[in-house]
Amino acid sequence: MELIGARLMVLEPGIVEISVPYRSDLTQQHGYLHAGIVTTIADSAAGYAAYSLMPAGAEVLSVEFKVNLLRPAQGKSFLAHAEVIKPGRTLTVARADVFGISDSDEQELIATMLATLICLRK
Amino acid sequence: MELIGARLMVLEPGIVEISVPYRSDLTQQHGYLHAGIVTTIADSAAGYAAYSLMPAGAEVLSVEFKVNLLRPAQGKSFLAHAEVIKPGRTLTVARADVFGISDSDEQELIATMLATLICLRK
Amino acid sequence: MELIGARLMVLEPGIVEISVPYRSDLTQQHGYLHAGIVTTIADSAAGYAAYSLMPAGAEVLSVEFKVNLLRPAQGKSFLAHAEVIKPGRTLTVARADVFGISDSDEQELIATMLATLICLRK
Amino acid sequence: MELIGARLMVLEPGIVEISVPYRSDLTQQHGYLHAGIVTTIADSAAGYAAYSLMPAGAEVLSVEFKVNLLRPAQGKSFLAHAEVIKPGRTLTVARADVFGISDSDEQELIATMLATLICLRK
Repeated sequence: MELIGARLMVLEPGIVEISVPYRSDLTQQHGYLHAGIVTTIADSAAGYAAYSLMPAGAEVLSVEFKVNLLRPAQGKSFLAHAEVIKPGRTLTVARADVFGISDSDEQELIATMLATLICLRK
Repeated sequence: MELIGARLMVLEPGIVEISVPYRSDLTQQHGYLHAGIVTTIADSAAGYAAYSLMPAGAEVLSVEFKVNLLRPAQGKSFLAHAEVIKPGRTLTVARADVFGISDSDEQELIATMLATLICLRK
Repeated sequence: MELIGARLMVLEPGIVEISVPYRSDLTQQHGYLHAGIVTTIADSAAGYAAYSLMPAGAEVLSVEFKVNLLRPAQGKSFLAHAEVIKPGRTLTVARADVFGISDSDEQELIATMLATLICLRK
Repeated sequence: MELIGARLMVLEPGIVEISVPYRSDLTQQHGYLHAGIVTTIADSAAGYAAYSLMPAGAEVLSVEFKVNLLRPAQGKSFLAHAEVIKPGRTLTVARADVFGISDSDEQELIATMLATLICLRK
């Protein structure tokens, strides 16, 4: 996450937001943020959101996720907003929406993720 | 893709392989390759595999993908093998498997992706 | 849909609700509604929600969907609530939540779907 | 599964096939098998395939699945072939392909599923 300049913006029980600024070396052939980077920040936000509801000492791992890429990933920065929709002792399901932030600070939904995470107890 | 050191290994009609060497700055908290990087090489391989069957001048975009993370993403390098399972005039469906390559060159399946891609004609 | 006794409850532009009563022949080994039936009503609601925003004479087809089964599918009836989250000329993305309705009319989220649909013009 | 006339055709460790004959009351508006029925047989096959590798007394539940609908679901009958691609103590990942069988007994791939299942120990 440091590699791509991501920052944790919000951290509440079950809700996490992560932001990443635009950088030309994170883009694909059309100049938009690469789908892998969009996925990385969505997955990280979903993971932290799930982790925020887990007991101390537990670890979180992504089991699987599905991402719909809805619009070109353009903006001066990008924000992933993740929420737990079903916490669980073993499995947690979270949703993450990724927004592109324009120069005039308007948000546009560019991708949405539905993810399953697992709680590993030591 | 340059940022993460990825290289195109195989390019046949409908089949693409992409390799990326291990690098410590691409890992998550446990020292394994970050799920976002695993997804990036799988998505890129799926995209090129779909693109290889599209008419000249067309462009390819990922519509959506689902990734199952099967084992810890460890290895000296990683290989994404993508195959088109249903080509189409508008939509193409591809599968991509990602393998970790051990020091003794053994392959272990670490993730699998099922992806939908769209052909954009100019 | 007639086979399983489903009924259209809400039909607004981009929003559709479908209800199905409990029936013992729609259940799996534990007496809960079969995942295939949960999927059927979610997919139908998502399809109608997408269709409600398409031009006259168009047809809608499901391209793909992902379903997370969150809780045992129990209740006297079941309600699928679908909303379009990204309409498009060719592709539409919709989300559908399925709720179990208890004897005291309380709703519990039992499944969530993220779906891609395509508009076919004649 | 009895409601739709499904039959278990193959049952090996990690591999299951389920067949369902064409029936007009299982079709959608175009006369093709409803996506929910396609999903039902794929999910059942994936579930049994996972279950076949679980210890005695355990139970299997579907956590989530993603289905790509590849071609119109037409045929005199339909066959779901499921294989476990990653067994696990808690989670199992399986793939299921659904084929339409023509009057001349040719198989055509009409859908593919990638599913996560959980083992419940009593």
